[in-house]
Amino acid sequence: MAKSSPRKKRTQPEIPWSPRPEGSKDLVWRYPNNPILGRRAIPCAQAIYNSAVIPFEGRYVGVFRADHLNGMPNLHLGWSEDALSWKISNDPIKFTGGDAAYRSGYGYDPRVCRIGADYFITWCADYHGPTIGVAKTRDFRKFERLENAFLPNNRNGVLFPRRIGGKYAMLSRPSDGGHTPFGDIFYSESPDLCHWGVHRHVMSSGSLWWEGVKIGSGAVPIETDKGWLLLYHGVRSSCNGFVYSMGAALLDLEKPWIVRGRITGPILMPELDYETTGSVPNVVFPCATLHDEKDGRIAIYYGAADTHVALAFAWRDELVAEILKYPVGK
Amino acid sequence: MAKSSPRKKRTQPEIPWSPRPEGSKDLVWRYPNNPILGRRAIPCAQAIYNSAVIPFEGRYVGVFRADHLNGMPNLHLGWSEDALSWKISNDPIKFTGGDAAYRSGYGYDPRVCRIGADYFITWCADYHGPTIGVAKTRDFRKFERLENAFLPNNRNGVLFPRRIGGKYAMLSRPSDGGHTPFGDIFYSESPDLCHWGVHRHVMSSGSLWWEGVKIGSGAVPIETDKGWLLLYHGVRSSCNGFVYSMGAALLDLEKPWIVRGRITGPILMPELDYETTGSVPNVVFPCATLHDEKDGRIAIYYGAADTHVALAFAWRDELVAEILKYPVGK
Amino acid sequence: MAKSSPRKKRTQPEIPWSPRPEGSKDLVWRYPNNPILGRRAIPCAQAIYNSAVIPFEGRYVGVFRADHLNGMPNLHLGWSEDALSWKISNDPIKFTGGDAAYRSGYGYDPRVCRIGADYFITWCADYHGPTIGVAKTRDFRKFERLENAFLPNNRNGVLFPRRIGGKYAMLSRPSDGGHTPFGDIFYSESPDLCHWGVHRHVMSSGSLWWEGVKIGSGAVPIETDKGWLLLYHGVRSSCNGFVYSMGAALLDLEKPWIVRGRITGPILMPELDYETTGSVPNVVFPCATLHDEKDGRIAIYYGAADTHVALAFAWRDELVAEILKYPVGK
Amino acid sequence: MAKSSPRKKRTQPEIPWSPRPEGSKDLVWRYPNNPILGRRAIPCAQAIYNSAVIPFEGRYVGVFRADHLNGMPNLHLGWSEDALSWKISNDPIKFTGGDAAYRSGYGYDPRVCRIGADYFITWCADYHGPTIGVAKTRDFRKFERLENAFLPNNRNGVLFPRRIGGKYAMLSRPSDGGHTPFGDIFYSESPDLCHWGVHRHVMSSGSLWWEGVKIGSGAVPIETDKGWLLLYHGVRSSCNGFVYSMGAALLDLEKPWIVRGRITGPILMPELDYETTGSVPNVVFPCATLHDEKDGRIAIYYGAADTHVALAFAWRDELVAEILKYPVGK
Amino acid sequence: MAKSSPRKKRTQPEIPWSPRPEGSKDLVWRYPNNPILGRRAIPCAQAIYNSAVIPFEGRYVGVFRADHLNGMPNLHLGWSEDALSWKISNDPIKFTGGDAAYRSGYGYDPRVCRIGADYFITWCADYHGPTIGVAKTRDFRKFERLENAFLPNNRNGVLFPRRIGGKYAMLSRPSDGGHTPFGDIFYSESPDLCHWGVHRHVMSSGSLWWEGVKIGSGAVPIETDKGWLLLYHGVRSSCNGFVYSMGAALLDLEKPWIVRGRITGPILMPELDYETTGSVPNVVFPCATLHDEKDGRIAIYYGAADTHVALAFAWRDELVAEILKYPVGK
Amino acid sequence: MAKSSPRKKRTQPEIPWSPRPEGSKDLVWRYPNNPILGRRAIPCAQAIYNSAVIPFEGRYVGVFRADHLNGMPNLHLGWSEDALSWKISNDPIKFTGGDAAYRSGYGYDPRVCRIGADYFITWCADYHGPTIGVAKTRDFRKFERLENAFLPNNRNGVLFPRRIGGKYAMLSRPSDGGHTPFGDIFYSESPDLCHWGVHRHVMSSGSLWWEGVKIGSGAVPIETDKGWLLLYHGVRSSCNGFVYSMGAALLDLEKPWIVRGRITGPILMPELDYETTGSVPNVVFPCATLHDEKDGRIAIYYGAADTHVALAFAWRDELVAEILKYPVGK
Repeated sequence: MAKSSPRKKRTQPEIPWSPRPEGSKDLVWRYPNNPILGRRAIPCAQAIYNSAVIPFEGRYVGVFRADHLNGMPNLHLGWSEDALSWKISNDPIKFTGGDAAYRSGYGYDPRVCRIGADYFITWCADYHGPTIGVAKTRDFRKFERLENAFLPNNRNGVLFPRRIGGKYAMLSRPSDGGHTPFGDIFYSESPDLCHWGVHRHVMSSGSLWWEGVKIGSGAVPIETDKGWLLLYHGVRSSCNGFVYSMGAALLDLEKPWIVRGRITGPILMPELDYETTGSVPNVVFPCATLHDEKDGRIAIYYGAADTHVALAFAWRDELVAEILKYPVGK
Repeated sequence: MAKSSPRKKRTQPEIPWSPRPEGSKDLVWRYPNNPILGRRAIPCAQAIYNSAVIPFEGRYVGVFRADHLNGMPNLHLGWSEDALSWKISNDPIKFTGGDAAYRSGYGYDPRVCRIGADYFITWCADYHGPTIGVAKTRDFRKFERLENAFLPNNRNGVLFPRRIGGKYAMLSRPSDGGHTPFGDIFYSESPDLCHWGVHRHVMSSGSLWWEGVKIGSGAVPIETDKGWLLLYHGVRSSCNGFVYSMGAALLDLEKPWIVRGRITGPILMPELDYETTGSVPNVVFPCATLHDEKDGRIAIYYGAADTHVALAFAWRDELVAEILKYPVGK
Repeated sequence: MAKSSPRKKRTQPEIPWSPRPEGSKDLVWRYPNNPILGRRAIPCAQAIYNSAVIPFEGRYVGVFRADHLNGMPNLHLGWSEDALSWKISNDPIKFTGGDAAYRSGYGYDPRVCRIGADYFITWCADYHGPTIGVAKTRDFRKFERLENAFLPNNRNGVLFPRRIGGKYAMLSRPSDGGHTPFGDIFYSESPDLCHWGVHRHVMSSGSLWWEGVKIGSGAVPIETDKGWLLLYHGVRSSCNGFVYSMGAALLDLEKPWIVRGRITGPILMPELDYETTGSVPNVVFPCATLHDEKDGRIAIYYGAADTHVALAFAWRDELVAEILKYPVGK
Repeated sequence: MAKSSPRKKRTQPEIPWSPRPEGSKDLVWRYPNNPILGRRAIPCAQAIYNSAVIPFEGRYVGVFRADHLNGMPNLHLGWSEDALSWKISNDPIKFTGGDAAYRSGYGYDPRVCRIGADYFITWCADYHGPTIGVAKTRDFRKFERLENAFLPNNRNGVLFPRRIGGKYAMLSRPSDGGHTPFGDIFYSESPDLCHWGVHRHVMSSGSLWWEGVKIGSGAVPIETDKGWLLLYHGVRSSCNGFVYSMGAALLDLEKPWIVRGRITGPILMPELDYETTGSVPNVVFPCATLHDEKDGRIAIYYGAADTHVALAFAWRDELVAEILKYPVGK
Repeated sequence: MAKSSPRKKRTQPEIPWSPRPEGSKDLVWRYPNNPILGRRAIPCAQAIYNSAVIPFEGRYVGVFRADHLNGMPNLHLGWSEDALSWKISNDPIKFTGGDAAYRSGYGYDPRVCRIGADYFITWCADYHGPTIGVAKTRDFRKFERLENAFLPNNRNGVLFPRRIGGKYAMLSRPSDGGHTPFGDIFYSESPDLCHWGVHRHVMSSGSLWWEGVKIGSGAVPIETDKGWLLLYHGVRSSCNGFVYSMGAALLDLEKPWIVRGRITGPILMPELDYETTGSVPNVVFPCATLHDEKDGRIAIYYGAADTHVALAFAWRDELVAEILKYPVGK
Repeated sequence: MAKSSPRKKRTQPEIPWSPRPEGSKDLVWRYPNNPILGRRAIPCAQAIYNSAVIPFEGRYVGVFRADHLNGMPNLHLGWSEDALSWKISNDPIKFTGGDAAYRSGYGYDPRVCRIGADYFITWCADYHGPTIGVAKTRDFRKFERLENAFLPNNRNGVLFPRRIGGKYAMLSRPSDGGHTPFGDIFYSESPDLCHWGVHRHVMSSGSLWWEGVKIGSGAVPIETDKGWLLLYHGVRSSCNGFVYSMGAALLDLEKPWIVRGRITGPILMPELDYETTGSVPNVVFPCATLHDEKDGRIAIYYGAADTHVALAFAWRDELVAEILKYPVGK
């Protein structure tokens, strides 16, 4: 079911993997050695979570949300051979570009996306409220800051890994300036990664409780011949605050604002200690995937309890088949 | 102090029991092997909690709140010889009765009550907001759905185990449609389990913090010759959300809207890990008791952290004697 | 279109009337001498509004909301020959019935309904929150207090003027204890005006702004051969508070929880000074109608700005015909 | 002080005018015959307010917010010889462009802007929340709907009357979906009126009470040789809701996100009956100006109390001189 | 009933007066020529209201809340021969005292109190939130700023006109920093007008609606031989915001935290146009009285609709006698 | 850097201590055997936390917040030889002083301060809302209740350990009656510990997230020759409620309302299980220090998760030096 493309020829290092536990019928299962990162992983940080990884030149590079000892989140670069054991810089990423609009008191919840020879980081930057910061790199050494994609308040900006209809394409979630008790996913396009328009509504928060408050895109969508596979987070409100879980949907390949299918339930909910306990209890927040295009294995990186980076696994074709059992008539 | 009645002659299986720990003066103490149910107890469910059990034909039957993998709560039937080890159906209970008012997207927090030869389930159903669903069975195979007892919004409907003044009697807690920051217990009566009236205010949320936000009935009241023994939950608001604890009161036998006594403090607060950590931290939520009428031992089933079913124990006569130290002048 | 019934034979005094203004196409138009009651109409009251009138023994009797000089609302009786000029008692109505549940610190927004030889007042009473008080009279001298119809919180209880399916029938609007930012109309029935059940949802707040926040029944429904003609209020939220307007719907004759039609827009919105200015600006709140069954003229009594009683007119058959242009597929 | 430009050569009809009242030192004064439009100005509408006018082919054309009898706001076209007496169509403006993103349940608070030979309407449209609708016309007969400028939620989108740095330029006010208790003015630019970017913060809500809650652009900025003259609204919160007043600022000609000056106080506050009373009390909401470039007279069209269109006057050079007394160090 | 004291010997100019209207039984009635001040009474101000007056050297002096054209409130001095026609300075009062704690961006709702040869102004000043500013004068030319009386947030500070138990005494109303949805009156004492302590709760917001949200002291208490006569404001919440009315209570002469009586209803509610319409609809806010000690006539100055100064009248002994019909058992 | 004073001559028992862990660069580190107190430490209490200790007559005395089994907090006395192992009374402290203003339904978050020969307890008492209770003892046997320091609502009252400018001095945090989403630290002084005045603003909640919601004083300030060393708590709002961390600042010795320095980040955040899990997750709340004046070692007592007493350590001179890297220009 994987799309046949020249991308297959890149030599990608082996992705992390762990088979589905005996007897389990879950579509998504956890890495037994979770969490892989967490408290005090580098000297300057209290915790590392909600982070993105991508293959680059035969190994893995990651952009990590590191909450510093002063409590503020920053983006840090890390390198790994196996995508499990990480060497993370103790200094935040430095962006070139001196415009005042780019100066941000913080940066959090990064995603990384390859489009051709360019790699883009999108994240939650601060410009009179949270909005989508965008930066470009080719070598993960120099990072050029581009214009913020949207007016505040916005979060969870996720690029598509190729142009669609000749335009760059991004999903985002308009928000308010606080903990935002609402939120749908929208699609926008751009000829130049500077000016954005043709905004289209994609998905609303859901009718089931687990995603009844708001939703937000998670990982860069995976292209399949049935559509774009989108892993996202859904949020419910318990009497003790928000609970974040993971969901899955399939977007039309050429008109991604059309939802082809969407599993009604979550595919991963907070259950284990490192998900239910930490700086923010009960958070599962997907930010990135590694994908073996040949056999369809997917490794999902998700933040746990705003404290840890954890890992889960799934089969691409199983996810797609399951999603297609829940077609969406739009 | 137990009421002498023909009911004693029923052959009831032995109730679970564990003696009060050495040195403890607590009125209520926990089962050392808690929790007895929790995460993934059946394939379709993420967690089981806030559930009710009752003796039936020489063994035990339970109606369980099972939060499905799609995050929505449903009622499931289970059977046990010892009321500790449960065999729970993977399919939700099916009710007969096709009226549109009975179609509910969910069902949660069940209670089970025997009145003569009939067994009634009351629970939180959905009819333009949460309200009290009612169903009748004689065999725990066929379940006949009756009219919802009240207008929305209402939760925590608990029947009395016999008619009072010739009428069916129910406690309930008028609510709002969300997480409800208020709530008192009311008494209502019915000639036919269909039409309800003569609504009487029973108890307000309390003056002490632990029950300062709202209260709700827990288990079916236990008849004693001093009055109806009511175990209920009280809720306080911490700066991190609601905390649910267990309280005890005694209601007048023939005019149950008159409170004869009410312990000012809680009889069980969240303390142990399975109560302070889970999908909703810090919840102790009583839903049912098993009662040995001969010697007055009580086994209390309570939900823990919206994740587990746990068990605690008490002596009926001790509870009643303690409550009567706190008479309520109404 | 009026239903042929023995009631036509009662000698009803002429209803107030004023023809539709030249050039107007409005379905509902105002009495030119509005308001007919308001500030200081009786010595004990600051204002009179939201009140109900009904023909009785050849003249008119009214139950008035009089906000006393102490600011609290009370129900007062008044008499009139022409339903325009009123002689209102300076003493509140006294109800017999000593039950504590009937003692209310206030009473407001009354409706009056004849069912056979009995006249019923329903209003917003206080019993641990607002709920529906009910009283019966045959002579408008002695008023027997019946049980409150529902648990708090509820408002806008309106009886139907005959039994339906052998049962008394009432519309009401479950509320919260404050200014209630939500609210739908429900239908309930009772064999004895004491116990209520078989609750059915009738209408939700609307999709257009003018009734987007909540709705509530207004006047006792008028029976027509097309259905029950219901005048109700709809509420929108401006950036300066709530705005109340008047709407119209038609309910099925024998299953009144089925809406046969509902005009999408309001039929009267606050426009004139006595509607936009007063103790609560921008309120039009219908509570009663007088109806000439022979020719179909309707006089509508509505509260204006929580300060005045005003009067508007309409043709029954025009309203019904207009409503039927907006059928509701339920 | 007016900018010398070829635009002066257009034959513009005389603008409405009324001299400053004797003894007044106010910068802005009202038209004595206010309001010029209001309740029931056309058959289909309850009220007309918050509207924009512009000279076109020797007379005036206006785009009006008409709240229909069903309570929903729509955009209507009107024509006038003197900009005081208006003939307004009873049918809403019809836009070409069939994309689903353009279908809106309502349209309100229009502004009209000429850029070269094109005229643009911007207004508050509905696309999963309020956002900025954009349409183009050359003849005020055919109106072509363009892409919405931004993601929701946004309001008060106002175009500049020429390209700046080669780009179209718009001011807007990111909002929430309700009555929005916050709001600053931002600047965005576009190469094609479809894709928008390079977002810059312009002005925050103010330190004085009258504009302490939020601000929003009002009329299309007037170009002067000192900068862009911006009339805007500021909002304070009284204990009875929001109060809208009018303010004035001067933006840099080529970098309009730089504020050159801003009068600390309001230049018009609600005082007269048609401003303090109506559907929403205490609203003064500027939407358009007519400007005599030769002598610098300005006629300001503002909505009053969400019920009326009113008119006020000022001298351009006086406003600019006053603003420059309040330089803003950014 | 007036207290016999040397103060009677001061030559006080005649107070304004207008007899009770024919047929009225109201305890308090309005001045027919109301309002006496309002919009644009001085060039710098948009409105004047919530102000205090006092006799001084054979004529009257007033401290006025003037809302400037920039929307911010300031304190202004005025002089009058008859206390009806006022000459008000266009410049705010200047206070000596350079401490940073005294620098306030605004000043509002002043009260003036004579204690012996000193006159004190108390008002709502700004020191990290609203709190009670205090200033002293002997000649109404030089005003010495004293320490703010309390920590923020506080409003409605009113001094007693003599020491009690050897201490200065003040009533105040702890508040929040916004529109404060709660508020009781407290009593505090001071040896030196700098340090305040021995705080005592005096009165809660009331059980009747008109004062159900909060209360605040109004005028300087009038000493009678039955106790201190206190005119105060009470606030209710309508669905369109707050409504302010006037109430009356009697405090114990030597222990003023003991309430001797309190009329359950308001003695003046917003009814007339200048009270129901203006910058803040429906406000009656008493700030001062003039009192003819010989015959007991009282002239009450109150703010109306946050726009006007209005005047009402009452007989001291009637008020006291009425209050004593409502004794308060504390 | 420690101040040379006669106090050094008191024989103080050795303070608890544990060296900084190998490799750590943290300014503050935890006691490895944490927590030292918690659940059920005495029979009457569910948990002990947020407590203060002080050396007295060669050993240690503590005033503990014990949440009783009825859920209400009370102050209990305890004694210890090593300040680690505590013998705590099962009875709450009894205060002399019969004034009604002193009767409080609860007492919590105590601090203890020696001034000369007197020891003072300050805590959160209840007098129509939370406020600062004050009591004096010389022997920790008799406790004399003094006047409450401030009007409600106030919390976190902390005395300075000597008079400043001849006056007693206290820090406090004006609050609201609930969970208070705001809060700055203020300074007040008193000649007699009864009357308080000269209120000065000290510090606002911070610009970094960890203290963005509110701050409150923690331990009695430690006098150094660079200023008063203040340990305090700062609060952020996560989407699951408040998170409490510890901060440090230096106040001017003679004008303590002047901040000399303030570390921008927290010096201790919730990380370990006993801090992230318990009755209120994610709370670190400092209440007291023990200080070896000779070498500058500090033992910090802090409440953890509203459940435990925990201990951390620091070097005074390191803290002061670090703070001085963050000077505050006030």
